[in-house]
Amino acid sequence: MNQTDTAVRPILDMNAFDATQASSNHQVSRRLNNLGAASVLFYRQPIEMVTAQGCWMTAADGSRYLDFYNNVPSVGHCHPKVIEAVTEQMSRLNTNTRYLVAVVDDYLDALKAKLPDALANVVMTCSGSEANDLAMRIARKVSGGTGFIVTEAAYHGNTALVTEVSPSAFRHASLPDHVVAIPAPSALVYGNDIATGFANAVRAAVKTLAQRGHRPAALLVDSIFSSDGVFAQPAGFLQAAVDTIHQAGGLYIADEVQPGFGRLGDAFWGFDYHGVQPDLVTMGKPMGNGFPMAAMASRPEYLAAFCEDTGYFNTFGGNPVAAAAGLAVLKVLEQQGLQHNARDTGYWLQQQLNQLAAEHHRITDVRGSGLFIGVDLGAEDDPTRPDPVYTVQIINRMRDAGVLIGAAGKHAATLKVRPPLCLTRNEAQQFVDALSAALTTD
Amino acid sequence: MNQTDTAVRPILDMNAFDATQASSNHQVSRRLNNLGAASVLFYRQPIEMVTAQGCWMTAADGSRYLDFYNNVPSVGHCHPKVIEAVTEQMSRLNTNTRYLVAVVDDYLDALKAKLPDALANVVMTCSGSEANDLAMRIARKVSGGTGFIVTEAAYHGNTALVTEVSPSAFRHASLPDHVVAIPAPSALVYGNDIATGFANAVRAAVKTLAQRGHRPAALLVDSIFSSDGVFAQPAGFLQAAVDTIHQAGGLYIADEVQPGFGRLGDAFWGFDYHGVQPDLVTMGKPMGNGFPMAAMASRPEYLAAFCEDTGYFNTFGGNPVAAAAGLAVLKVLEQQGLQHNARDTGYWLQQQLNQLAAEHHRITDVRGSGLFIGVDLGAEDDPTRPDPVYTVQIINRMRDAGVLIGAAGKHAATLKVRPPLCLTRNEAQQFVDALSAALTTD
Repeated sequence: MNQTDTAVRPILDMNAFDATQASSNHQVSRRLNNLGAASVLFYRQPIEMVTAQGCWMTAADGSRYLDFYNNVPSVGHCHPKVIEAVTEQMSRLNTNTRYLVAVVDDYLDALKAKLPDALANVVMTCSGSEANDLAMRIARKVSGGTGFIVTEAAYHGNTALVTEVSPSAFRHASLPDHVVAIPAPSALVYGNDIATGFANAVRAAVKTLAQRGHRPAALLVDSIFSSDGVFAQPAGFLQAAVDTIHQAGGLYIADEVQPGFGRLGDAFWGFDYHGVQPDLVTMGKPMGNGFPMAAMASRPEYLAAFCEDTGYFNTFGGNPVAAAAGLAVLKVLEQQGLQHNARDTGYWLQQQLNQLAAEHHRITDVRGSGLFIGVDLGAEDDPTRPDPVYTVQIINRMRDAGVLIGAAGKHAATLKVRPPLCLTRNEAQQFVDALSAALTTD
Repeated sequence: MNQTDTAVRPILDMNAFDATQASSNHQVSRRLNNLGAASVLFYRQPIEMVTAQGCWMTAADGSRYLDFYNNVPSVGHCHPKVIEAVTEQMSRLNTNTRYLVAVVDDYLDALKAKLPDALANVVMTCSGSEANDLAMRIARKVSGGTGFIVTEAAYHGNTALVTEVSPSAFRHASLPDHVVAIPAPSALVYGNDIATGFANAVRAAVKTLAQRGHRPAALLVDSIFSSDGVFAQPAGFLQAAVDTIHQAGGLYIADEVQPGFGRLGDAFWGFDYHGVQPDLVTMGKPMGNGFPMAAMASRPEYLAAFCEDTGYFNTFGGNPVAAAAGLAVLKVLEQQGLQHNARDTGYWLQQQLNQLAAEHHRITDVRGSGLFIGVDLGAEDDPTRPDPVYTVQIINRMRDAGVLIGAAGKHAATLKVRPPLCLTRNEAQQFVDALSAALTTD
């Protein structure tokens, strides 16, 4: 009945500081004392950060780190245009959507210009979790179904409802009856015809749900399967799965919280990359370059159906400061040509990583799109065997060499490469050099 | 089985612009086009706001409004100290809690100094909804129960789980089986011994839950029962209810999202006002004076029990900019003596409102603490009958006179008085004068 019961530690714990250990570091003790069991500090030796700019973060001890991990400061850490917009609006007016404020609708108009025409309503929230929580309820209301199909190492957020469909957050929890997790769209699982294989997995999941008495509400997937280990190719493979969920009466929710806003280079959104039409779209992380904001886009009739039952109001969602931040991010993306840079620098980076793979047998795959790339690492004796322990070693060596990177995937053995979109060729080269050095330390 | 099925419109709709009507106002059309059914614009003639300062908001047409509604900009709209702190930190570093950042722990230390010692862990979130969502799950894990007891017109947030315990958000939705709503602690319901009456209602709810096969997870109440219509007196009445839920094996979650951070004047938190010890505390709205942030405080062992099942990480929660905003709010509250002002100006304001009640028979009750006051309005022929239509009239007359105010309560016939805490005696007088004029327009 349960596919992920065997997960011992969620992915986010793999590179975490062991909080059960006492620490002689005052800042570490203070943090553990404050956040307790909810504390997730990166690295065996956590880093105290003090400043950041562009693709770089600087620690309290003066060390500088090239940031290949954080996908929130997408147009670059502390971007002056975003800071200016937030400060200006915050000094003028910060309120809620119960009043009209022009910048809020200016932003919604600009955002909708990036979305399919059919998704004409946008609900602003504070977090991707809130956006997915709302999308799941709308899918249930519209489809009449209760079941959800997600991928095995998916992460969609932290609310009660969304945690149920986020197996990568599970420690000893189990998937509830109404959720079926299918393998991520990897050629290792589905062979060369990923489109058909993945669609068949969706079909099988619909059957499993039916056996448990559930009709499907939605197929909910991150468009680049970020937490599953980054799966983008071949572009278009999602269409068959979307057709399958539609035939079964469910909706397709495109979770763009990680892939959205130009990171994939070839497209602004992951669903656009695949050329598919989502029924609902959720977005978040890079939306305000760090200002807390997120959103869900819906067909007006779907949102209206949901609002028949309960109202929806979000105190901070859609405040004018968030709108100003979001508008600044869209302008910077456009003016600095960051989506093009994600494509060009991302393509160049993938080439370099493929060269590295040719030299290092423990790199078993390089894949992705734009500046969202996954690099699989395998065991020394049998590289086809994913090696999470080695991956953590590499991550910590990279840290020591001044590069921040994390892991993803069911086995936590995929390096998740996702620097700010303003990455230069020179910075990409520094990353490749550092990774090459880390791989040759053995 | 269901106590609130008869609710026709949620409280938040009572004073809403009728979105089914066409509007000749361009900004209104744009908003309806963007937010669709989720749009909740105040007033029959919505207001376009452009700036705000202290207790005042200014509209696009130049009209100025004295803000007696918004409890988020608690230390005053666009407070320069908060703007300065946000701008400074945003220009330096904005990241997540996977790294150490000193200001985050500076804030958590300062916040914990305001909380009971036992609640030594604080999880930062983006919204009060996320905080309550987490608190409810912790209560279930710790108690082993599944049921929740809330008040009839409660509002605790907008996630799937939290909406279940927020009857005031219901249009045609029903309370689920595991939620029992009890009448708010009003003397009209419980007579003079509110403590015993309210505790008895909790006891009866525990029985109802048992009959449905549920053990209680928690009594979840807003410490001043904001959405129920503001019930504060007599201080201490909550203790018997808290004892009752403890005896039944459930936790007491203090929802401080609205009453917290000094608004009650006599105490920093609503539970302190009552002198009771909560098991979990949630907070939000005024915490960052508009910067999106919220939190949940827990005993370390409770949080640890929850984290055994799933990890908890919040991308934007606990970011250093939020921490800087929160720290600035605590400093301003202290330096400007705003809790004392809430007490003194609030006490004076209550006196004036009681005088007004002596002159106007349709004011049937004035109650509250500090700058959180409820004013009941009744029908002309029988003032004991709550009059929501009249209340909306008064609210719209106040709008036309340049004062912003909203309604609360099961019958939506209670004026909810909650201006920024920097309110001056002169501004309080202006409010009283405007209300007096609105009441004599008939």
